[in-house]
Amino acid sequence: MENGNGVKLMENGLSLKLQNGTHWGFRGNKDLDTPPEITIRGVLGMLKDTIDPADTRSTIPLGHGDPSCFPFFRTTEVAEKAIADALQSANFNGYAPTAGLPSARRAVAEHLSADLPYKLSVDDVYITIGCTQAIEVALSALARPGANILLPRPGFPIYEARAAYSHLEIRFFDLIPEKGWEVDLDAVEALADENTVAMVIINPGNPCGNVFSYEHLEQVAATARKHGFLVISDEVYDHLTFGSKPFVPMGVFGSIVPVLTLGSISKRWMVPGWRLGWLATNDPNGILKKTKIVDCIKGYLNISADPTTFNQAALPQILTKTKEDFFQKIINMLRHTSDICDQRLKEIDCITCPHEAEGSMFVMVKLNLELLKDIRDDMDFCFKLAKEESVIVLPGVVVGLKNWLRITFAIDPCSLEDALGRIKYFCQRHSKQK
Amino acid sequence: MENGNGVKLMENGLSLKLQNGTHWGFRGNKDLDTPPEITIRGVLGMLKDTIDPADTRSTIPLGHGDPSCFPFFRTTEVAEKAIADALQSANFNGYAPTAGLPSARRAVAEHLSADLPYKLSVDDVYITIGCTQAIEVALSALARPGANILLPRPGFPIYEARAAYSHLEIRFFDLIPEKGWEVDLDAVEALADENTVAMVIINPGNPCGNVFSYEHLEQVAATARKHGFLVISDEVYDHLTFGSKPFVPMGVFGSIVPVLTLGSISKRWMVPGWRLGWLATNDPNGILKKTKIVDCIKGYLNISADPTTFNQAALPQILTKTKEDFFQKIINMLRHTSDICDQRLKEIDCITCPHEAEGSMFVMVKLNLELLKDIRDDMDFCFKLAKEESVIVLPGVVVGLKNWLRITFAIDPCSLEDALGRIKYFCQRHSKQK
Ligand SMILES: Cc1ncc(COP(=O)(O)O)c(C=O)c1O
Ligand SMILES: Cc1ncc(COP(=O)(O)O)c(C=O)c1O
Repeated sequence: MENGNGVKLMENGLSLKLQNGTHWGFRGNKDLDTPPEITIRGVLGMLKDTIDPADTRSTIPLGHGDPSCFPFFRTTEVAEKAIADALQSANFNGYAPTAGLPSARRAVAEHLSADLPYKLSVDDVYITIGCTQAIEVALSALARPGANILLPRPGFPIYEARAAYSHLEIRFFDLIPEKGWEVDLDAVEALADENTVAMVIINPGNPCGNVFSYEHLEQVAATARKHGFLVISDEVYDHLTFGSKPFVPMGVFGSIVPVLTLGSISKRWMVPGWRLGWLATNDPNGILKKTKIVDCIKGYLNISADPTTFNQAALPQILTKTKEDFFQKIINMLRHTSDICDQRLKEIDCITCPHEAEGSMFVMVKLNLELLKDIRDDMDFCFKLAKEESVIVLPGVVVGLKNWLRITFAIDPCSLEDALGRIKYFCQRHSKQK
Repeated sequence: MENGNGVKLMENGLSLKLQNGTHWGFRGNKDLDTPPEITIRGVLGMLKDTIDPADTRSTIPLGHGDPSCFPFFRTTEVAEKAIADALQSANFNGYAPTAGLPSARRAVAEHLSADLPYKLSVDDVYITIGCTQAIEVALSALARPGANILLPRPGFPIYEARAAYSHLEIRFFDLIPEKGWEVDLDAVEALADENTVAMVIINPGNPCGNVFSYEHLEQVAATARKHGFLVISDEVYDHLTFGSKPFVPMGVFGSIVPVLTLGSISKRWMVPGWRLGWLATNDPNGILKKTKIVDCIKGYLNISADPTTFNQAALPQILTKTKEDFFQKIINMLRHTSDICDQRLKEIDCITCPHEAEGSMFVMVKLNLELLKDIRDDMDFCFKLAKEESVIVLPGVVVGLKNWLRITFAIDPCSLEDALGRIKYFCQRHSKQK
């Protein structure tokens, strides 16, 4: 098909005839005119590029959940040694089985079972490349024509991107700030239909820093069972709680509804760069096997990349030999930095915090734009803040809430105080005159 | 929708009503009645399960390309030390950028440029989780409605699986045994149309152990340019050549046609478990940028898992500090074991080798079923061989050639002699009387 200008048009969009005369039949999927997809990584990268190189102050990152560069948050020697030993044995230079090394699978099964009313078996666990790959595997295994999935808003954008990639229709339910960011279960009921395959919860929460109670999780389970879909529970921040509510794994309700638990050592051990996680089926009634979801998980893993084998080999040591001291030290620090955050934010008029963090590494706060004179929205706020104060904060729109901010408090206390001081000063400078 | 038996039927297949009365709306993608997809991993796993535990002889694996467990094929100390140093620095416990650590990208760009008539830049390289993830990224980036891709037969099944997963239509061209497994370029011409986005070559070859000449690669480039599609060149076995032809990277022809080069340290450094590879754009004319393929690569990496950060940090040391001795020792050993394979196979009537290996770790050989009395096909041959002789060989059907076998010779010479002796004995036992 030729148009008037001799440019060849293809059925699926314009193909390119470049200066060298060859007609190239391949072309990117993306519409030429739409901006790149908004991802946390993408936006944080752009904010970083906005920093004024002439600013002699250090850049303070309150944007992402990775405190591993701060000496206080260095991981335990136990974990470093476990990896070094596995590497140096030279026994783990080869490929691992699709589902992971059996020793690693068994270790995760035992680790998770400690908090459950029943025991997981080695066959319930798949070792993944961090929680990120666990998300990919779970959504790919559930995808089928016409299916839909319920995602939290605010949430973690990789779910949306991966669901879209797998052609799962996305339906958002709200988390309610006035109820401590609990799931709007009425919304879930209204959204679900017979093509709903799963709902996702993130507990402890990213981006809200909330922790779900036992009772609320039980209600989630009852709702999912009523409508016949499973629960994907992202527990990458498991046990990182410092408020009044303890961490309860969703798997506790596995006999009410099948649960896919996604986790990793990234956050609790402060080693997100090691890329080691898991997907566990909490399903004492064997429903995931009968409905062939287990086959789909295995099938997808068969054509996917694996985690580094020697890292897998180190997992049993990491999970069983890490001292309680290490975890306690981290929790105490997160409680401390979360408190600093709450206190300092109270001094800033144009920012409101509806619910203080009880877990994870983040808190969601609302921007009161009507108090600011020259800030258009959360994006504008964050870009100006980066440029003027060398502080990086994530615009809420990236996680689904426009004109909110996600603030990471998991950094060293001095830097945090410094950053919040700069934010206060920035807000004063941009405030309307009273 | 209810059928006569009160079973609820869903538009997209039968949903399950299980004994507990709940109607579960999720269900695996796979047809309930089709067997699991054939993958190399899957079939090798099944063959392993067939081994007779009462056999006191050791099992000999001629099935997969991973000699890392044999002491002779242990990787170089340089590489082990590079990883250990990066780990122990504690500077690489955090997340890496989407495209990889800049130092690792630069190191790969320089490493590959040494064999090219132009220089790759750091922006041409993406660090991946082995070559496996590079395949996934390349095919995902090229997928769009209606597109098709040309794959070699025999080939590497992950291409087929990933193309299918991305809804790329697959068209196979043959490799011709009588021409040293060269690409049937007439077939490529006949298969290509304006929706063809790429063709895949694997050089040095898996499963055939062949090496493409400069002239043949130039013809591949000319064909691809004529039809306006790009070339994906899987060079995971790069430089593992021991015949008369040197390894020529496809990127040499990057100014004729854009080339995506896929590689890893898995094979040349004998560390497939480390999961470290790359995708490089060889495209001095910038066509991949103009056609937005580069944006699609970045976009897909943004929602994908990353390689372990400290492994990435070790890559510059691994690529620049490994001694020539190490490579030479491995090449000499592969030449030696390939020779053993050729000699011993000549003694077996029912197996013909049309083209001896010149590179990689494999050779493809033909089964002459008419000489065997009770062997149905290649699958049957391999399962009986595993059961009776504790030797594992890959049935050709798994890589696209029924009634052929893929034999790995990259194991220690004594085991190889032992295995080929057992195969000879097995064939004699199953031969028709002359
Ligand atoms: C909610 C949530 N899920 C998954 C991940 C990915 O975890 P991992 O680093 O283990 O891949 C993150 C990382 O920030 C996260 O916040
Ligand atoms: C042709 C080919 N491509 C890719 C791969 C995967 O390589 P990696 O282990 O680096 O992921 C293999 C592994 O056997 C292979 O043979």
